Amino acid sequence: MLVVLSGPSGVGKDAAIDRMKEKGLDIHFAITATTRQKRPSEIDGVDYYFYSLDQFTSMIERGEFLESANVHGNLYGSPRRQVREQLSQGTDVLLKIDVQGARQVKAKVPDAIFIFLTPPSISDLVGRLRMRNTESDAERARRIQNAYVEMEALETYDYRVVNHDNRLDEAVNQIGCIIEAERCRVHRRVVTL
Amino acid sequence: MLVVLSGPSGVGKDAAIDRMKEKGLDIHFAITATTRQKRPSEIDGVDYYFYSLDQFTSMIERGEFLESANVHGNLYGSPRRQVREQLSQGTDVLLKIDVQGARQVKAKVPDAIFIFLTPPSISDLVGRLRMRNTESDAERARRIQNAYVEMEALETYDYRVVNHDNRLDEAVNQIGCIIEAERCRVHRRVVTL
Repeated sequence: MLVVLSGPSGVGKDAAIDRMKEKGLDIHFAITATTRQKRPSEIDGVDYYFYSLDQFTSMIERGEFLESANVHGNLYGSPRRQVREQLSQGTDVLLKIDVQGARQVKAKVPDAIFIFLTPPSISDLVGRLRMRNTESDAERARRIQNAYVEMEALETYDYRVVNHDNRLDEAVNQIGCIIEAERCRVHRRVVTL
Repeated sequence: MLVVLSGPSGVGKDAAIDRMKEKGLDIHFAITATTRQKRPSEIDGVDYYFYSLDQFTSMIERGEFLESANVHGNLYGSPRRQVREQLSQGTDVLLKIDVQGARQVKAKVPDAIFIFLTPPSISDLVGRLRMRNTESDAERARRIQNAYVEMEALETYDYRVVNHDNRLDEAVNQIGCIIEAERCRVHRRVVTL
């Protein structure tokens, strides 16, 4: 089973995934590749695979990504082999990807499960992005602009999970429930890549 | 949202529902009407509405049931008004009904959510039915025969929840998760009767 988790920048996807890992959720968290600058707290090969633009584009040419996208001026991609290996072992895989990447996965793997993590409102999201210190002013402005576009993608997802302030556990529980429920489907969606 | 819970006789539907009530699951448990003999532990108007055959059939004639079925020689039915009132107040409703009744609900309310509680295996189920003391030998034999027919209905359900021996909480959690997940659907199934 392939689970796609998306949501606008700043909604709390990374925090949600960290909490899911802490809770020992029984799923493989796919590690995304990116050309984005590593943040001080991040570890290469754990949080992301950090590649140069040159490395990344040659991986695209070799078809090594299940999906790839340019988000806020950086490239992101999901290594296909990692996902395929887990699925072939019968392990469910969670992909944290943006709405462009999700659209590519939907075209290739229509039976994947698409979850959209959303803020209580767009004004709430803009507030959160304004508060962040991890980006430059220009990058923050770009992310805010992009949030509107990203929110429109909600309609193409299967599930919506609202991440209220200070209620991350509720959102994480709902994501866990969605995965648990999908495993109970009589006609299970079996995915091969 | 209308949730239908079915499963072969003896699989543990009543025990599952009792546990859900204990846990305070946020849903209205519809009370079924029946012509079956009240068991000593049961309370009229709480566990079931107990009616005479005459009362029951005149309710059928007046169209007061959302579904009704003859199960093991007794009539069962879901009072339509009770379900409609709850749904119109925005309260989700859970119907515990047999596979015949579920088929009728599916025809009238295709957007309902259909959950099938199943034993680990049919031989396990037959074993459980043989152990029960609440029926006569003849009724037990009829239930065992019927179990095979009921198990075939699984294919028409959305979700399958396995009720393993001594793991009722696991099954109850899965049912709770299915309801929680369905509430997160982007295109929520809204039901009117």
